[in-house]
Amino acid sequence: MSTAKAGPQTATDYLIASKRCEKQDLEHFLALGDLVATISNLVHNLQRERGASNLYLASGGARFVRERQQLCCATDAAITDFYERLQQVETSIHRVHGGMRLFNRIAFVLHSLKDLASLREQIVARSVALEQATQLYNNLVQSLLAIVFETADAAIDPIISASLVALFNFMQGKELAGQERAAGASGFARGHFEDGHIEHINHLIDGQQRCLEVFESFAGAECAQRWADTQAHIPLAEIEQLRGQMTQKRAGDSRPDASGRLCIKADPELANRWFVLTTTRIDAMKEVEEGLAQHLRILCEARLQAAQERLTHHESLIRLLEQDNELPLLSPLRISSAQQASRTHAVADRPDGRSLMELLQFQAQRLQHMSEELNAAKTALEERKLIERAKLLLMKHRSLSEEQAHRLLRQMAMNQSRRLAEVARSVLEMADVWG
Amino acid sequence: MSTAKAGPQTATDYLIASKRCEKQDLEHFLALGDLVATISNLVHNLQRERGASNLYLASGGARFVRERQQLCCATDAAITDFYERLQQVETSIHRVHGGMRLFNRIAFVLHSLKDLASLREQIVARSVALEQATQLYNNLVQSLLAIVFETADAAIDPIISASLVALFNFMQGKELAGQERAAGASGFARGHFEDGHIEHINHLIDGQQRCLEVFESFAGAECAQRWADTQAHIPLAEIEQLRGQMTQKRAGDSRPDASGRLCIKADPELANRWFVLTTTRIDAMKEVEEGLAQHLRILCEARLQAAQERLTHHESLIRLLEQDNELPLLSPLRISSAQQASRTHAVADRPDGRSLMELLQFQAQRLQHMSEELNAAKTALEERKLIERAKLLLMKHRSLSEEQAHRLLRQMAMNQSRRLAEVARSVLEMADVWG
Repeated sequence: MSTAKAGPQTATDYLIASKRCEKQDLEHFLALGDLVATISNLVHNLQRERGASNLYLASGGARFVRERQQLCCATDAAITDFYERLQQVETSIHRVHGGMRLFNRIAFVLHSLKDLASLREQIVARSVALEQATQLYNNLVQSLLAIVFETADAAIDPIISASLVALFNFMQGKELAGQERAAGASGFARGHFEDGHIEHINHLIDGQQRCLEVFESFAGAECAQRWADTQAHIPLAEIEQLRGQMTQKRAGDSRPDASGRLCIKADPELANRWFVLTTTRIDAMKEVEEGLAQHLRILCEARLQAAQERLTHHESLIRLLEQDNELPLLSPLRISSAQQASRTHAVADRPDGRSLMELLQFQAQRLQHMSEELNAAKTALEERKLIERAKLLLMKHRSLSEEQAHRLLRQMAMNQSRRLAEVARSVLEMADVWG
Repeated sequence: MSTAKAGPQTATDYLIASKRCEKQDLEHFLALGDLVATISNLVHNLQRERGASNLYLASGGARFVRERQQLCCATDAAITDFYERLQQVETSIHRVHGGMRLFNRIAFVLHSLKDLASLREQIVARSVALEQATQLYNNLVQSLLAIVFETADAAIDPIISASLVALFNFMQGKELAGQERAAGASGFARGHFEDGHIEHINHLIDGQQRCLEVFESFAGAECAQRWADTQAHIPLAEIEQLRGQMTQKRAGDSRPDASGRLCIKADPELANRWFVLTTTRIDAMKEVEEGLAQHLRILCEARLQAAQERLTHHESLIRLLEQDNELPLLSPLRISSAQQASRTHAVADRPDGRSLMELLQFQAQRLQHMSEELNAAKTALEERKLIERAKLLLMKHRSLSEEQAHRLLRQMAMNQSRRLAEVARSVLEMADVWG
């Protein structure tokens, strides 16, 4: 029954290996958290470059020439950071669950980044339409956000997973806010908002709301409070008023145009005000986002340290066990109060088990609780995937735009009093019927 | 935007890294599949040693002395194989998703194996009760099966995952069949079956049926057919007849004993016949199980080879792309027929994309389909976990035996016309209410 070879062959070795696995996973997420922070910064720079490029193109190349150039340089610096960070985290990507998906997402980003130089040339030469340039920037940002999404999906630690789900949704919300700023600015500048335009803006407002709701439900109390405090300083009432002017909320100002479509008149003088107000909001969001990324790092470090402490504690308990086969009897109160203190972890961080079997059971319970708690975050990600896939299906089979597909899903959910994700699931289940 | 350092920094490098990740994961499962085969063999030996030990103890140490010794030696050989295999697969355990849980499960097994020597001594000295000895063997077998369960849970490839779910359930079914053989043999030998005994046997019969149903729904057509063919050669009718005698099905033979409890008389002459019949069945199951383990290996090898071919194919496509930036136009029919041929994989194994973006999208789709298809197997494992946890909760809070808890769940499911897993979920959701 015994073996002469080296290597972990005892229960305690394997128990320690289990704890080491946990710790290594956290180390990888510490690295991936830094990648996410780099992405947050790159996305912000791309959003600003996109905004300046829009204004440059909209003004026929007259305005924002210098600002655009400066912002492009800032983006390039962020891209260099991103490339450097990628090299640093390559091993971690290999080691986490879902590494194959992460690598694929990164390949998409690298492929899109390669085309950035030629996009910029076209913008300078004004040989690309504003909408097309915007769309290419949007795609690039989406491909970067997809990396954050996969990182959240790869997390095993429930607290880190929740934190990444919160951060991803906040980043997505900020991106939609940026798109709303652009859509609003161009509408005000033109002096009117048409059907499709209004639908698009409503879609962006609705999307922001959903993202921020998910953010709030997954962000810890501290981060959620920071966002609430920040919002108190944003001129939301004025933003809402201008939103009302852009969309159907003030029906008195709207009139059908010659073709019978809805067309809302708007004061071109408000374009600048709209841009300033929404920029205040987006900049405030960027600050909150930086706080979230920082919080994620602190969280990863704390989880890693706790894992290291558990490992050390386990190792010393095992040494004690090996010496006299029984540990000193510790007050059960201590375990119980530790359990109560940690509401998010039903199992205390420090086991005071008095036998190896107790230590093994303690670790098994910890791992089970972790995977149970992980479910909430995973479900949020899963529902997002369901909705995206259902939208794609509707777009393909009923030739709808993304917004139309989304509106159809939302309408179905309202009519059936069901959640959006449930309706999306039903749509996908019917996929075979549709051929 | 460029970087001087070495390392994958292009989209194609990351696409290849994604495919390599997939391939490496399959390599790890090829190794883990061998561990599972070793476990299947060890479990079978433990089951035989348990049976011989039962008969030895039941006969007051008079019978099966030599057979028991031989079987112990066979188990020892299987344990040595297990230890050796463990060393070989250690790296793979580290690398797969859920490695921390696998390590923990293995630690449980190693801890239990350490106690086997003293259990055997007690059996030889007849200083342990038959029931207690049986229970210790049962626990050891369950801890080994838990490794197989975690391996299935760690699988990312949907086909391998389904195959492991099928194998796990077959192994679990075989173990319950072994327990039924022992319970039946002791009842016949005693000449009667009492309340608790009957309940236990019904529980074992019911459990086997559920396990074999799950097995059949996840085993491929070939493996399911092998099991069907094997069953045709098992004297099932006679086994069913004896099962009827043991349980309440032939109520005419049953009478309440002095305490008013149900007690079914049985012919002690049938003990041997029962043992021979059920052994025939269990040995046949072992053969099918070996076929399943072999099939798993063939599957892993085939999947690995396919992954290698995809990788090579991708690499050559990428070289072509890098040379002239466009691939020869291939008939779209070829992609479409390949897609239709592979019903389990909606995405063809060999992409004939003509741009890097198509290759990236192809890989993204593959990964998405894989994770969608994985869901069915994961759900089956998840439901098993739910039922086990709900049973534990009921056992704890209502002081029930495992069988009583199981019967209660089943009764609730029948009354509410819901699935067992759904009832288990409701029970767990009520856990907080129970305190």
